[in-house]
Amino acid sequence: MFLNPRCRGMNSLGMFCVRTLAVVGCRTATRARALCTSPGITVAQIDEEVAKLLELKAKIGGDEVKHQFVLKTAKGTRDYNPKQMAIREKVFNTIISCFKRHGAETIDTPVFELKETLTGKYGEDSKLIYDLKDQGGELLSLRYDLTVPFARYLAMNKITNIKRYHIAKVYRRDNPAMTRGRYREFYQCDFDIAGQYDAMIPDAECLKIVYEILSELDLGDFRIKVNDRRILDGMFAVCGVPDDKFRTICSTVDKLDKLPWEEVKKEMVNEKGLSEEAADQIGEYVSMQGGMDLAERLLQDPKMSQSKQACAGLSDIKLLFSYLQLFQVTDKVVFDLSLARGLDYYTGIIYEAVLTQAGVAPVCTEAQNGAPGEESVSVGSVAGGGRYDGLVGMFDPKGRKVPCVGVSIGIERVFSIMEQKAEASAEKVRTTEVQVMVASAQKNLMEEKLKLVSELWNAGIKAEVMYKKNPKLLSQLQHCEESGIPLVAILGEQELKDGVVKLRVVATRDEVRSRHTHTPRSTSSVLFLTLNYKQTPVHLMETLMNTKTQRRLIACHSSFKDLQGRKSPRGRIKCAQMKSSK
Amino acid sequence: MFLNPRCRGMNSLGMFCVRTLAVVGCRTATRARALCTSPGITVAQIDEEVAKLLELKAKIGGDEVKHQFVLKTAKGTRDYNPKQMAIREKVFNTIISCFKRHGAETIDTPVFELKETLTGKYGEDSKLIYDLKDQGGELLSLRYDLTVPFARYLAMNKITNIKRYHIAKVYRRDNPAMTRGRYREFYQCDFDIAGQYDAMIPDAECLKIVYEILSELDLGDFRIKVNDRRILDGMFAVCGVPDDKFRTICSTVDKLDKLPWEEVKKEMVNEKGLSEEAADQIGEYVSMQGGMDLAERLLQDPKMSQSKQACAGLSDIKLLFSYLQLFQVTDKVVFDLSLARGLDYYTGIIYEAVLTQAGVAPVCTEAQNGAPGEESVSVGSVAGGGRYDGLVGMFDPKGRKVPCVGVSIGIERVFSIMEQKAEASAEKVRTTEVQVMVASAQKNLMEEKLKLVSELWNAGIKAEVMYKKNPKLLSQLQHCEESGIPLVAILGEQELKDGVVKLRVVATRDEVRSRHTHTPRSTSSVLFLTLNYKQTPVHLMETLMNTKTQRRLIACHSSFKDLQGRKSPRGRIKCAQMKSSK
Repeated sequence: MFLNPRCRGMNSLGMFCVRTLAVVGCRTATRARALCTSPGITVAQIDEEVAKLLELKAKIGGDEVKHQFVLKTAKGTRDYNPKQMAIREKVFNTIISCFKRHGAETIDTPVFELKETLTGKYGEDSKLIYDLKDQGGELLSLRYDLTVPFARYLAMNKITNIKRYHIAKVYRRDNPAMTRGRYREFYQCDFDIAGQYDAMIPDAECLKIVYEILSELDLGDFRIKVNDRRILDGMFAVCGVPDDKFRTICSTVDKLDKLPWEEVKKEMVNEKGLSEEAADQIGEYVSMQGGMDLAERLLQDPKMSQSKQACAGLSDIKLLFSYLQLFQVTDKVVFDLSLARGLDYYTGIIYEAVLTQAGVAPVCTEAQNGAPGEESVSVGSVAGGGRYDGLVGMFDPKGRKVPCVGVSIGIERVFSIMEQKAEASAEKVRTTEVQVMVASAQKNLMEEKLKLVSELWNAGIKAEVMYKKNPKLLSQLQHCEESGIPLVAILGEQELKDGVVKLRVVATRDEVRSRHTHTPRSTSSVLFLTLNYKQTPVHLMETLMNTKTQRRLIACHSSFKDLQGRKSPRGRIKCAQMKSSK
Repeated sequence: MFLNPRCRGMNSLGMFCVRTLAVVGCRTATRARALCTSPGITVAQIDEEVAKLLELKAKIGGDEVKHQFVLKTAKGTRDYNPKQMAIREKVFNTIISCFKRHGAETIDTPVFELKETLTGKYGEDSKLIYDLKDQGGELLSLRYDLTVPFARYLAMNKITNIKRYHIAKVYRRDNPAMTRGRYREFYQCDFDIAGQYDAMIPDAECLKIVYEILSELDLGDFRIKVNDRRILDGMFAVCGVPDDKFRTICSTVDKLDKLPWEEVKKEMVNEKGLSEEAADQIGEYVSMQGGMDLAERLLQDPKMSQSKQACAGLSDIKLLFSYLQLFQVTDKVVFDLSLARGLDYYTGIIYEAVLTQAGVAPVCTEAQNGAPGEESVSVGSVAGGGRYDGLVGMFDPKGRKVPCVGVSIGIERVFSIMEQKAEASAEKVRTTEVQVMVASAQKNLMEEKLKLVSELWNAGIKAEVMYKKNPKLLSQLQHCEESGIPLVAILGEQELKDGVVKLRVVATRDEVRSRHTHTPRSTSSVLFLTLNYKQTPVHLMETLMNTKTQRRLIACHSSFKDLQGRKSPRGRIKCAQMKSSK
């Protein structure tokens, strides 16, 4: 039997429904035609009609939905578990400290914008924007990137100078490929410099930042491709591309990192109607790669030099490379005429960083076909950006321009790689920073444990206690091992009588008794677990002094000069290290 | 003349439109009725019809929108500027370090969930949920809080034990009151403990966390009200409220923090049809406030003690207070029978923290009417939470329950208060952490400046340079003063010849020459600006050594032992402080 009672129930109405449906179906068609030819219908009327229909839909769909209840996240999105969050935090810290090192401020904007704010900024990609339902009031869309909201922010607040970073999620109704780190909800880490400055100085800093971040994240070798929209446009002009085809030919060129030249040419000629000759000329240029020398050569190129635009772009590339030399980053930067980038708003220099080590990243197999002139296999873009001098002006009521240049780090791909690395590595990723677990071997000590853990918290020490009154010591120790807690403070009847706490090093199982001094809450920076170092074996002392947090937890209650000069795992123990630091 | 050309244009169509409209209007009504009485219409058909209507709406509305272009953020939302972000970062750091101190992991979930995930979790508030437009595929809604996504996460991943925090934005289509910190997009900072544990231990830790955070944020005096859903339900039962009116009477009680008892009673009797007698009995109970003693008294109360539910709740309140005593937080916690809290999912203990200092916070004037028994004026809730033992089970296919308790910090109100404080305070909020500005008084030193700033970045020092080739020294110094950069490294022809850099303290205008040693990039932790301390005045030395970052920047290139023991503004200069620390 395929039919469950519900289906059968529905079926019994079937005969009757079909008839009604036919009538409704007919009316629907008439209705739509009627509406289309009646320009006088108001928006409010449509809203009303839509609301009625949707209400009906909810009624019809309501019951079905309940029974099809699926426990999942929305398509193309994912949760981050604590391990992934620990990795994410590490990556963010690296990136943020780089942005801060370069003197950037940070801003935040709402996750949705007025729909019209995003309209006309992304070219063909606009179809991927998430819209919110019209629930009355403004029409809203989820942000597609952080650049357009940034430009809106500048125009709205009449800001003409800022260096800012913004780390936040953006939304694209794209075809997700989650194993490759392509999601519908994903983070962008943007750094942008807005302001009227001397040519190529902020642009060079953006590239320096990409260089620093990719080096520090240690993802393997990378290359930063650089080009200029003006060079592309100039090239199209001298190759005989009609003006109105610049954008569409540009987006075909953009496919060169995924398709071989033959395919790209075919699209230009067959789909976009470009002449074979023009395509071949483009093909010649886009195979060129180099550095400052290539820019110089092209400035002498009899054809390219005919375009004023191209010459302006080429001179800037030369200037850019001279700054990159001062920054000592030219070893990874390559001037590549095949780099196009899809977004509409770029006006000058553009760049994109790719990892060049095959096998490290979740590789897109298409990329392996090899772009022309590429020596090593590209494993996907991890950063990109460029200059967009016109975008802010699109928002300003008087069209006032604010020149901008920026870079966006493609952090999801970085996460994917880091996660793979963590999986492969033997080292366990800690998801908490707890330094000490308050435990007991005996029963009925819950109150004492709570008192002690509370004191630890008040002293600013990361501490935990189990939420059971009488847990087994073994399970308490197991918890420490699983979550990497290095120390256990064990309470027992005898310890309580003696006014001490037994301190146990989880890894070595060494134990030591430490004096337990109650301190008033106000003196939270005062250490309250004190060790008698003379009774403490040196190797244990050293383990205990191993990290800064633990040094906060433990102090020798008598003079600690004797310990100076003894070797600890992190080098010689210094007196200053033994002091409590807030 | 009121009519602009566009209106007139529309008007010329008027006569014709009115006729069509009349027909359409009539059809609309017929249509809606027809649909309502035709259970056989399919969802797909409705979708099609809706799409057609919306397309039509877009056509009609399209042109108007362009002309009404407004430069703003969506209603009820705001941007954060760099100053607000600096405050936000500080607040988050305080909160996160508290959560970490208590051993919490962190997770993240997508900003939208399947619509059905949120359905039926928020009671009357469900109407405030933001839905995404149906663009094909799943029906999605923006998260309304972090608790329901957390429960979905636990059920989906079959997690039965976790202590996690989650800081993220949530969305409510509420009536915004932005001056009071009520937005449609706002942050929640949630800490929750999931797992089958002994009674009231995790609950007490949640209250301890609220206590710690509110104390550390230094927002003025506060009080944490505690109650239990079981006590409320038991109270309703013994006061003669019919079972099916528990929820609605509960949400009326919830208004007691904004309305005086008389108003609340009126709503109970007139709107919700409760008997006058029952309302008066409730009125007596909800005016009660106290501590463990009140719980004991109510356990003896001849009426209240008839309810098993109430007794269970009262016993737990007693136990809770005994743990709170160990945590030394009872001075701020009050057992308050008027606390109800709106959300449907609470099953046990509930709590809410309010600031009690009038005038500090952006006060809701309604709150000033005074709830019964309140001594000081409440200035709004800044934290709230409770136990929700049934929520995870709603998601589990087999209904397996995971008991949970948690707390949410109402961070937006905290931001508002901190912003007001910052405005009132003389101290400037720094929005960057730049320690040194590379500058020059002479022209044509751009290359040298870029080289120096690049070396500083490579050494991990936060540094800036202006993006103009030849800025005036004055404008460079002004930038330092405005953004609080403490040091300027000034390059000049003579300095370059001598291999030194002039280091200037912005605040005091003191200057000192420091040796400039070029270091290879690989040794980024090596300090490269070295001072000859014998030529450096002590007070300047002390200023330079004032912060950790500056100590990283500067080292004395000869022995620094002589300096030891000299007084610095932060106490004695110690040799260890002078060493570079990574």
